[in-house]
Amino acid sequence: MDILKGACVFGQSGGPTSVINASFYGAAKAALADPRITAVYGAAHGIKGMLDGGLYDISAEDPGELELLPNTPSSALGSCRYKLADPDKDDTDHRRLLELFKKYDIRYFFYNGGNDSMDTCEKVSRFMSRSGWECRVIGIPKTIDNDLGGTDHCPGFGSAARYIATSCMEIALDASVYDYGQVTIVEIMGRHAGWLTAAAALASHFGSGPDLIYLPEKDFDLDAFLDRVSGLVNDKDSAFIAVSEGIHDSSGTFISEYASGNGGKDAFGHTQLGGLAAFLASKVKERTGAKTRGIELSLLQRCGAHLASRTDIDEAIMAGRAAVEAALNGESGKMVAFRRVQKNLEYACLTSLVPLSEAANVEKKVPEEWILPDGSGVTQELIDYILPLIQGENGRVQQLGLPRFAKLSKTLAKK
Amino acid sequence: MDILKGACVFGQSGGPTSVINASFYGAAKAALADPRITAVYGAAHGIKGMLDGGLYDISAEDPGELELLPNTPSSALGSCRYKLADPDKDDTDHRRLLELFKKYDIRYFFYNGGNDSMDTCEKVSRFMSRSGWECRVIGIPKTIDNDLGGTDHCPGFGSAARYIATSCMEIALDASVYDYGQVTIVEIMGRHAGWLTAAAALASHFGSGPDLIYLPEKDFDLDAFLDRVSGLVNDKDSAFIAVSEGIHDSSGTFISEYASGNGGKDAFGHTQLGGLAAFLASKVKERTGAKTRGIELSLLQRCGAHLASRTDIDEAIMAGRAAVEAALNGESGKMVAFRRVQKNLEYACLTSLVPLSEAANVEKKVPEEWILPDGSGVTQELIDYILPLIQGENGRVQQLGLPRFAKLSKTLAKK
Repeated sequence: MDILKGACVFGQSGGPTSVINASFYGAAKAALADPRITAVYGAAHGIKGMLDGGLYDISAEDPGELELLPNTPSSALGSCRYKLADPDKDDTDHRRLLELFKKYDIRYFFYNGGNDSMDTCEKVSRFMSRSGWECRVIGIPKTIDNDLGGTDHCPGFGSAARYIATSCMEIALDASVYDYGQVTIVEIMGRHAGWLTAAAALASHFGSGPDLIYLPEKDFDLDAFLDRVSGLVNDKDSAFIAVSEGIHDSSGTFISEYASGNGGKDAFGHTQLGGLAAFLASKVKERTGAKTRGIELSLLQRCGAHLASRTDIDEAIMAGRAAVEAALNGESGKMVAFRRVQKNLEYACLTSLVPLSEAANVEKKVPEEWILPDGSGVTQELIDYILPLIQGENGRVQQLGLPRFAKLSKTLAKK
Repeated sequence: MDILKGACVFGQSGGPTSVINASFYGAAKAALADPRITAVYGAAHGIKGMLDGGLYDISAEDPGELELLPNTPSSALGSCRYKLADPDKDDTDHRRLLELFKKYDIRYFFYNGGNDSMDTCEKVSRFMSRSGWECRVIGIPKTIDNDLGGTDHCPGFGSAARYIATSCMEIALDASVYDYGQVTIVEIMGRHAGWLTAAAALASHFGSGPDLIYLPEKDFDLDAFLDRVSGLVNDKDSAFIAVSEGIHDSSGTFISEYASGNGGKDAFGHTQLGGLAAFLASKVKERTGAKTRGIELSLLQRCGAHLASRTDIDEAIMAGRAAVEAALNGESGKMVAFRRVQKNLEYACLTSLVPLSEAANVEKKVPEEWILPDGSGVTQELIDYILPLIQGENGRVQQLGLPRFAKLSKTLAKK
């Protein structure tokens, strides 16, 4: 294999997670240590910032601050949601990137994100290869949604799952404290895949949690739902329900669209922001007369790094490191993937590589057989799948009772 | 002082917190160990449950489960929101209670709650004293709102403050991750007192947090607010704002009432649930065009025991124990209060006793001089006041990566 010397760039893309900076850390440490890599750059706001020439010099960062990255949520370099055109149709951006790659002698490109980011990665890889600029491109998975193809699970999911399960256990105790009917509805992220919502089942399984759990993989019937909740209120004075933000009826209409009514506008003509939990709560109140409360876990489920799992952090670091190692070994156009070796709670996670195209174009959903036939919960298999991913204390650094997150200098690369 | 032998009852009332069970633990341990106390009962759902004869026998509980109480959020005995009548006007409930007290030989009554609960406590004390049933009544403070009179601060506040500050630090990183205008508005509990919302200032002070913080102690001007946010979006592409649920205009109308429009009903004629953050977010979007997000911390700020502060837990235990000790020493009609001894971060908390009437009828607000003149933030004094209360790790017990909360058998008392 040829030795390829040159600079590398690492970019973060899409919605941040509690551990995307752990992958950055893993990749940066490996890259900074290897003599074949002549400079380590961070993309300011992913591919979008790169198009504007935004590169940070990671070697200029205080090593002590870099050590704090694995426990720092969100994307320390900044993120973007930018759709790169297909180079076969419009290569304007790609030519711009090639200029930048040449200017900084970038021979290694690492991009950390979800489906869209792997799509970006694949396009960059294709264009560089065709243009004759020798450059190795490796994708690093990341998404709390856990819906990337080609990998057993995704960095970011385990920590979000632990946040959701822990919060649901706490809410379950709070929400059943009075001696009159109370219904609590928690709305969890996941537009098309129900992995995160399924994590609420861990709360029910190991302590106290939702009575009913609805994923977007099955059609949601509002009337049947109201009957079910009504029954629970009659039986035990309270009900706790977890719903995915993406639940929809049999015609494919999101239930959140019922909430926002006419074209997603509220009574003031403003665009409605979420509101599924509040909508279902109001419907339940109308039907049962019970006191209701809708709760959106909102951003906290993806940035609540204080509950990140050690397993997730370690695997995110491993994914970053594996990307650098793979590229140094001559690989390109691939994404790092996880393979699971599990026998009960004996669990191990190994990395492998899958073609970028395989990861980019698959939206991995919860298998039908892991969802209860009536769609109101999940099976033991799904609990067993998630459980190893939420293990281990994160060992976060604190100062005066509060998190001490990494503060990067973000020194712009010279050229 | 006379030795008074007899049973004791401990009740939990009002909205639960992360540490109200720590006070129960402190009181129960002290009571179970003292030979003058012949039986230790827990009130099922506070005074309301007692009226129905609901008493649990705490000596029947597994001691190992009792040890888990300090880290178990919510009210393990159940809570209530029941307004006891003034015994001078209607003593029906009081005579019922007296019967129960006689039946179980209850000579010690401990009631753990906020303003309304101290009012209940005072009425019970007054009636028992007048009826000639020798019984010592001590209130134990509890409220995340921190608005009880006669005490430096309240158990429950420190843990909620730590949850809010930590969450705001995490949200601040997540909410500024893209390179376009983003405005995030977090709604925090506290209808009349802004202590909890002020805790968001710790995030800004020690890392990353809200740019603007609005408490209910000052009138809120929507137009001035929109100008301010608009300026921030122009200057730095993002803005992060913390608001108390109780902010109101100069006429006293809650801003959340603007949100719910006609009489608190939404477009469907349903009563609106909260929605202040979403309302302000939609107004900001209209004005600035920025991407906006409204987040309600909702129940998690009061039940997020995984972030409880050791200081708060220890003080809550101390308050419970001090109540039992005071009663055994002959005190009655009083509430346990905290006195602070502080010199910079050298902080100590001592207990004292204050008349129940003093605690019940005062709603302690954030002092005017601790709020910035324009109402958009708080002073260093307020940060210094809160900081010692959020210190220390809670040492929570976990099992398989999730909290292991106390499971009480709730064995009904025999008679």
